[in-house]
Amino acid sequence: MRFGDQIVYFCTMIKITLIGAGNVAQHLYRAIQQSPSCEMVQWYARNLDRIYKYQEEVKLCDQIKSLETADVYILAISDDAIVPFAQVLPPLGGLLVHTSGTVGMHQLPKQFRRGVLYPIQTFSSDVAMPFDQVPFCLEAEQKSDMQLLKSIASSFGCPTYKMSSSSRAHIHLAAVFVNNFTNQLYRIGHEITESQGIHFDILKPLIRETANKVQEQSPYRSQTGPAKRGDKKTIKKHHKLLHEREDFMKIYQQLTNSIAKTHGKKL
Amino acid sequence: MRFGDQIVYFCTMIKITLIGAGNVAQHLYRAIQQSPSCEMVQWYARNLDRIYKYQEEVKLCDQIKSLETADVYILAISDDAIVPFAQVLPPLGGLLVHTSGTVGMHQLPKQFRRGVLYPIQTFSSDVAMPFDQVPFCLEAEQKSDMQLLKSIASSFGCPTYKMSSSSRAHIHLAAVFVNNFTNQLYRIGHEITESQGIHFDILKPLIRETANKVQEQSPYRSQTGPAKRGDKKTIKKHHKLLHEREDFMKIYQQLTNSIAKTHGKKL
Repeated sequence: MRFGDQIVYFCTMIKITLIGAGNVAQHLYRAIQQSPSCEMVQWYARNLDRIYKYQEEVKLCDQIKSLETADVYILAISDDAIVPFAQVLPPLGGLLVHTSGTVGMHQLPKQFRRGVLYPIQTFSSDVAMPFDQVPFCLEAEQKSDMQLLKSIASSFGCPTYKMSSSSRAHIHLAAVFVNNFTNQLYRIGHEITESQGIHFDILKPLIRETANKVQEQSPYRSQTGPAKRGDKKTIKKHHKLLHEREDFMKIYQQLTNSIAKTHGKKL
Repeated sequence: MRFGDQIVYFCTMIKITLIGAGNVAQHLYRAIQQSPSCEMVQWYARNLDRIYKYQEEVKLCDQIKSLETADVYILAISDDAIVPFAQVLPPLGGLLVHTSGTVGMHQLPKQFRRGVLYPIQTFSSDVAMPFDQVPFCLEAEQKSDMQLLKSIASSFGCPTYKMSSSSRAHIHLAAVFVNNFTNQLYRIGHEITESQGIHFDILKPLIRETANKVQEQSPYRSQTGPAKRGDKKTIKKHHKLLHEREDFMKIYQQLTNSIAKTHGKKL
């Protein structure tokens, strides 16, 4: 063959087998189908019910022994299932990656070339996600595999960040703060508005603008409100309103103290 | 005059004097200037520096005794300044409203027709805000004044909610949860990413999507993550990562417990 390795590499489609049928798997499937440099080999799930509708587009498979050769096997399954599932895989060759924020790359069996492709995003089953809005944390044992993962994610249109399992665990923790915990603050807002017979809609523009603001300027600069101002009078009023919700009160106090500390205020 | 009262009312421009030069005042000024049914009489500020640039568009004023007759006087000044300022106003006639979430309507002096026009939004000084994204909480002593406030806010394109001072105080509290506290969670995310030498940009799409999700479905339905799943193993991993940040740990625990309680999980 007259082409160098590098050129052959870019001319060949990357063959991917997807494992799992949940939200992340379904979004990855769409990304792979739309990618100019990837193609699906098989889509494996223990139970094919959720992906049966794709049977005319892709080879479905529910038997481990039927898995064929691919360049990359992506385990898009729940954190707890990753290691047990990987351990029963036959020696397939190819690169084995999972998509979890919390599972270390080295927990995958040694017999494989190992890696991680962790998307930092919250996926809804029924809403398509533009992939430029899905940053991927990449990890691989071998430099060439890192390049392979980068090619895959970039072909989806995703921003990529190379990082270790330890850094990824921290990013996953940060994601819990800005996603799960933020969403729980929305829930508290929902409970408070409902207690007044007012529709939660009233808070939606503020929620959206709060998220928009930190796209352009730091959370430090974006902060406003009584805790940042050191406004004890308003904080006292809020304490009174929360006297029957000890659980909300504790959260109020912790976050108020946190803001005051960040902005050098004494309360 | 051959027109009925109602018709005259809609044909007459509502004359507004704005008091204050901060962010809320500046955004209100823009809304009034763009409104088809409102016109500015004067714009008062103790210090005209911040609004001097508007001197060719509107009559500026820094003397209380120079205030002229208007239909509505809007006090867009800091919470603490509202009552002291209102007390030194001469008997102007017209409707006196403030724009605060925490000050009761009845704290305004009795000599005025009183009301409140409280926008639930976070304003940046340099970013224009589409007014359909600014819900207004309205309160007035008299039915006709409520109608007047509704006409003003609607002419800005704002959604309006009629509510008492007590309900408004609760909505202000809810706004602190979904805005100030959420922003502090972003700040914590920022600190965690920085501690790993990773740019905060990595979290921005997730932040935006978290806010987008609750525009369409409830925060209850939107919730995901370890606390909602009752995933003790991941929570334990996060505790380990937070062992040097007791302040973040406390917030982590409170919000994790809150999510578990909301979703009926034991941790």
